Amino acid sequence: MEMINTGDFEKEARHILSQSTYDFIAGGAGDEYTMNRNIEAFKQIHLVPQIFRSSSDTNTTITLLNHQLSHPFMVAPSAFHSCVHPQGEIATVWAVNQRGIGMVLSTMSSIPLETVAKEATCPLWFQLYIFKDRSITQQLIQKVTAAGYTALVLTVDVPIMGNRERDKRNQFKWQAPFTATQSITSAFLAESNVKHTTDALFASDLSWDDIEWLKAQTDLPIILKGIMHEKDAEIAINLDINALIISNHGGRQLDYMPSTMEVLPAIAKQVDGKIPLLIDGGFRRGIDVFKAIALGADCILLGRSVLWALAVNGTEGLKHLFDLYAKELNETMIFCGCKTINDIKIHGRNSIRLLTGSSF
Amino acid sequence: MEMINTGDFEKEARHILSQSTYDFIAGGAGDEYTMNRNIEAFKQIHLVPQIFRSSSDTNTTITLLNHQLSHPFMVAPSAFHSCVHPQGEIATVWAVNQRGIGMVLSTMSSIPLETVAKEATCPLWFQLYIFKDRSITQQLIQKVTAAGYTALVLTVDVPIMGNRERDKRNQFKWQAPFTATQSITSAFLAESNVKHTTDALFASDLSWDDIEWLKAQTDLPIILKGIMHEKDAEIAINLDINALIISNHGGRQLDYMPSTMEVLPAIAKQVDGKIPLLIDGGFRRGIDVFKAIALGADCILLGRSVLWALAVNGTEGLKHLFDLYAKELNETMIFCGCKTINDIKIHGRNSIRLLTGSSF
Amino acid sequence: MEMINTGDFEKEARHILSQSTYDFIAGGAGDEYTMNRNIEAFKQIHLVPQIFRSSSDTNTTITLLNHQLSHPFMVAPSAFHSCVHPQGEIATVWAVNQRGIGMVLSTMSSIPLETVAKEATCPLWFQLYIFKDRSITQQLIQKVTAAGYTALVLTVDVPIMGNRERDKRNQFKWQAPFTATQSITSAFLAESNVKHTTDALFASDLSWDDIEWLKAQTDLPIILKGIMHEKDAEIAINLDINALIISNHGGRQLDYMPSTMEVLPAIAKQVDGKIPLLIDGGFRRGIDVFKAIALGADCILLGRSVLWALAVNGTEGLKHLFDLYAKELNETMIFCGCKTINDIKIHGRNSIRLLTGSSF
Amino acid sequence: MEMINTGDFEKEARHILSQSTYDFIAGGAGDEYTMNRNIEAFKQIHLVPQIFRSSSDTNTTITLLNHQLSHPFMVAPSAFHSCVHPQGEIATVWAVNQRGIGMVLSTMSSIPLETVAKEATCPLWFQLYIFKDRSITQQLIQKVTAAGYTALVLTVDVPIMGNRERDKRNQFKWQAPFTATQSITSAFLAESNVKHTTDALFASDLSWDDIEWLKAQTDLPIILKGIMHEKDAEIAINLDINALIISNHGGRQLDYMPSTMEVLPAIAKQVDGKIPLLIDGGFRRGIDVFKAIALGADCILLGRSVLWALAVNGTEGLKHLFDLYAKELNETMIFCGCKTINDIKIHGRNSIRLLTGSSF
Repeated sequence: MEMINTGDFEKEARHILSQSTYDFIAGGAGDEYTMNRNIEAFKQIHLVPQIFRSSSDTNTTITLLNHQLSHPFMVAPSAFHSCVHPQGEIATVWAVNQRGIGMVLSTMSSIPLETVAKEATCPLWFQLYIFKDRSITQQLIQKVTAAGYTALVLTVDVPIMGNRERDKRNQFKWQAPFTATQSITSAFLAESNVKHTTDALFASDLSWDDIEWLKAQTDLPIILKGIMHEKDAEIAINLDINALIISNHGGRQLDYMPSTMEVLPAIAKQVDGKIPLLIDGGFRRGIDVFKAIALGADCILLGRSVLWALAVNGTEGLKHLFDLYAKELNETMIFCGCKTINDIKIHGRNSIRLLTGSSF
Repeated sequence: MEMINTGDFEKEARHILSQSTYDFIAGGAGDEYTMNRNIEAFKQIHLVPQIFRSSSDTNTTITLLNHQLSHPFMVAPSAFHSCVHPQGEIATVWAVNQRGIGMVLSTMSSIPLETVAKEATCPLWFQLYIFKDRSITQQLIQKVTAAGYTALVLTVDVPIMGNRERDKRNQFKWQAPFTATQSITSAFLAESNVKHTTDALFASDLSWDDIEWLKAQTDLPIILKGIMHEKDAEIAINLDINALIISNHGGRQLDYMPSTMEVLPAIAKQVDGKIPLLIDGGFRRGIDVFKAIALGADCILLGRSVLWALAVNGTEGLKHLFDLYAKELNETMIFCGCKTINDIKIHGRNSIRLLTGSSF
Repeated sequence: MEMINTGDFEKEARHILSQSTYDFIAGGAGDEYTMNRNIEAFKQIHLVPQIFRSSSDTNTTITLLNHQLSHPFMVAPSAFHSCVHPQGEIATVWAVNQRGIGMVLSTMSSIPLETVAKEATCPLWFQLYIFKDRSITQQLIQKVTAAGYTALVLTVDVPIMGNRERDKRNQFKWQAPFTATQSITSAFLAESNVKHTTDALFASDLSWDDIEWLKAQTDLPIILKGIMHEKDAEIAINLDINALIISNHGGRQLDYMPSTMEVLPAIAKQVDGKIPLLIDGGFRRGIDVFKAIALGADCILLGRSVLWALAVNGTEGLKHLFDLYAKELNETMIFCGCKTINDIKIHGRNSIRLLTGSSF
Repeated sequence: MEMINTGDFEKEARHILSQSTYDFIAGGAGDEYTMNRNIEAFKQIHLVPQIFRSSSDTNTTITLLNHQLSHPFMVAPSAFHSCVHPQGEIATVWAVNQRGIGMVLSTMSSIPLETVAKEATCPLWFQLYIFKDRSITQQLIQKVTAAGYTALVLTVDVPIMGNRERDKRNQFKWQAPFTATQSITSAFLAESNVKHTTDALFASDLSWDDIEWLKAQTDLPIILKGIMHEKDAEIAINLDINALIISNHGGRQLDYMPSTMEVLPAIAKQVDGKIPLLIDGGFRRGIDVFKAIALGADCILLGRSVLWALAVNGTEGLKHLFDLYAKELNETMIFCGCKTINDIKIHGRNSIRLLTGSSF
């Protein structure tokens, strides 16, 4: 079956993966309301382009924290790529290299972080948790820095792991233990239940003071992932955080949060271009990427769709996936008369009509 | 089958119970619009937490009319627990004892009120109707007081029994005659049709004067159950009523009332903390409990879900049910940075976003 | 099968009637949008009663154009009752007599108007069209007056017959030729296609001048059926019309009109109690009747449900149907603390909450 | 099967055509959101007519750019009529001639433009693309002018071809190569993939300067097809464009544009009657035509439904289709008291109620 759009990868992956692995990736918290709303929210955003502004020489490159990316999207941090493909994160980073985008490696990578870094020619960031035992985080930062990662992405929406009912029903245990941090946290190897492990290891009572502590541990840029409230954006900017990622963790943490697109306008207004603003959650089309940029985002993180493409066809599947996003983004830019990503920021907003009755 | 969420209990109970008993509990009045809207309304309430306010040492205890409860929820009064479990209300109260919450016994309890009281170590209130023959109510209050009940919950939304069409289709007759009041009202034993009995026995033309009369009969706190209009809250407070329960009787009385969550904000504004405000109707998750408290409720009553858990596994099922509510409430508090129930009242409201287009 | 609610009659009638007869009654114009919206609109109207205003001695009688009716509803004019029951309109009027309500006989009655009048002890009005040949209308008025009908209900929304696609697909022809006017219009007998006949015979270019002409032909009260615009209500009142019926002809004439309930508030405001205001369209429950009265209507006309009940069980079926409406209206009044229909008008409005996002 | 409404033609055509040809016509871009919304939007537009304004002698003729049309609709330009009927555009123009309406021939006509022109007694316009090689456009204009076409309809919403996923899945290739321009663009014959061909041949970076250039090439009136933004309407009027067509290309170009009906009011306000305003997109009923005129359109273009009728029964099918639109438009005019199309413009707007919560 030819992969015509990103949804095809999920359909195909469903046949390839075991039910419990599929569910681990596809599922969300509780009623999965937020997970589904992430996708539905895009339907409430209309585009009304003006004509005669098109150009065939569109350029989607962006500069993000001194990296140049060929497209305004990156690979989101997600656990255990080896669950869906034998080469795991290695297969992923190869595709990222070839498509000129960037990648955020998960703390729960199934491949050691140094191994992934060695394969990377692309911008590579590391997703970090603050452990209850702060010394683990310190050692991890040292390893990450030594391996050449260029930014730390601190996940801020996991004081505890979310209520993933599919995993409970499947009694899901990961088959491919992650090894990124194995030299540090052998506990990860001894325990196969995601929620038990993470709730045991990760700090659940972080405060903004911990951010001050984290800044003191590293010279790397610090990015917060999991912002949903505009007031948090304000605080982060005042603390000289280097970038923000709007995220509800793909609907996998607290259910009944709004979609990320619904909170984007208010947060973008707060950020006001002072630092890069990234976003994830339900992006399935290049047109979705366009909408997010038009409403104030600088870059999009791709999560589940990366895993589906990896499952279906490894590095080749991922390259195809990135091409689908890029091609549709390009075409949307042509339709909307935007030659560059900056054009989308400046002119794209005028093309957007938010439906009344939605919660924007 | 493991009970992962409260909905699982209903699914399992459906297999266990006869169709007519299942329908008696599951059904509502008329088109069951209000019954379904109770549940749907929660989807119109979004949560947008701020980060870095979490704490692992959450505390869900509340003090309610001088009782301390481990969690801000109680067992709502519902008829005939023996319909679904041989030990009836005894099995229920055992679970309530063990989980440190409270219970409201129904006038239509299948177990004598004195027997239930003897088993109770928990806060125990008695749900009361005013009978056409006021002397029955007087005698009942005397028995209730003697048995040690600590509050009277007067049901105010049953001038007549609602139009339960499922029961009509099933020609439902209760199999387990309630005995709480049998020494007083032998009529209850002679008649097995709920609506005929209750319409015959209960007063249908109550006025606020009857509340004055009731107050004169007892020193127990009086709580009104079935408030939907903010003006009634105002009147009740002026009459020194001790607490209010927002309820549409689970959608079993007048159909096409709004959901209880829709009227909560206006009533909470009217009550303004002067007396405890309780609510029931469609609560299926701890996250629902959080939302109600954030919008002004002090405590939640659990109705149908108690009966499903009782049907599935008696006292053990109920403890599991209460644990599910408590666990998810705790997790929601952690996500939203609320250490105590009072924190939810003070800060939780800021996390709430009501969808436009809804009828709040 | 016991008839628990009015919907049961339709389900049962569907089994009894031929597909084409069922469709003739059940169908509407075009996409049947308006027909369905008539029913859906009731869901956008919530009731929030205040407690302690109930009384068991409710009284639903109304006085309408000097008639006293036991309930605030009547039988709407509809064609060809003999299509669904051998005794046709005779069976209908018997039930109306016994239940103390009123009836509007259709020009397309399958029984001669004099025969129906002889059987009627109830208030009986005659539904009239203005024929292209005005002398037919004049003769008809003479016959109607001689037979003792007490009001003329002029249908004003049939400049042409609506686009009933079900009838076109079924090549529907009536099996029971109407005879009410056969002595005048033999053309009706020669032609069995409803639309051809009516478009040929009825005037399609009426103006308000024709109302002046009509008034000159009779001393009977004149009622206009088919008002949807508040400006028409204003004109009618200025012309001393005696009553108005809000109707979109059950969604059988112009599709994509709003529901009648949506236009009721604006028209009721215009009428302001100066003349009686009636309404039809999608009334399936006594609670619907309550809502319409609370929003300003004086009386409701029942159309399709009358035909279903007639089909199922003739006079007895109709009595049961009227009892279902009356019982639920009574119960809704008790819940909402209204002893009389006038109470609904005065206090009921306060119980109504119209959903935002609806088109009221 | 008798064709009762225009939807019947599509159902029948689905049986007649191959899946890939059916999909080529029926499909839209991406998720087909805009394609479906075109149709759904009509449901948000209610009609509330006043009574007693009807007339049986309705007249639907309009004058458009000096042509008189019997009805306010025309045949939209669409490619390859020979795909669905052996006589292709010849069969179409015969029906147009007989029904007194007009036709826009597509650049991708399957019949040479001169042949179609010879068969036409109706107003005939030519739909034009500006080719990358401007000389092709120049030659085409000369041929079009010589053949007697009376206006040029420049398509402005195809900087590139849309993302038609059905065609990709079907690997659709047209079976009936278009020949309208074959003497000029032999490339069209060598290539059967619509998107490859058009993206290769048509200019993708047009600006308003190209409109100035186009005006210099011809004395024919110039009409822009594909306007969705009111600012473009303003620019066009300032450049003395002769007419505008609101279109989202039937949802086949940029997905997630709003429906054309949603943008009509703002564009009509901008145009303010200075030049004719046409519209296409989801018109399936004469009542839809009425609504568009009431909201400010002068004429409607019919696209897909023309192809379905052509597929089902050629010239006869088309005449029947046009009659269905005309009949329902007439009936809607009678119901709404509009004798002429001008009446709809003047009085029809008062009959329109747009639902709140929609994006008008």
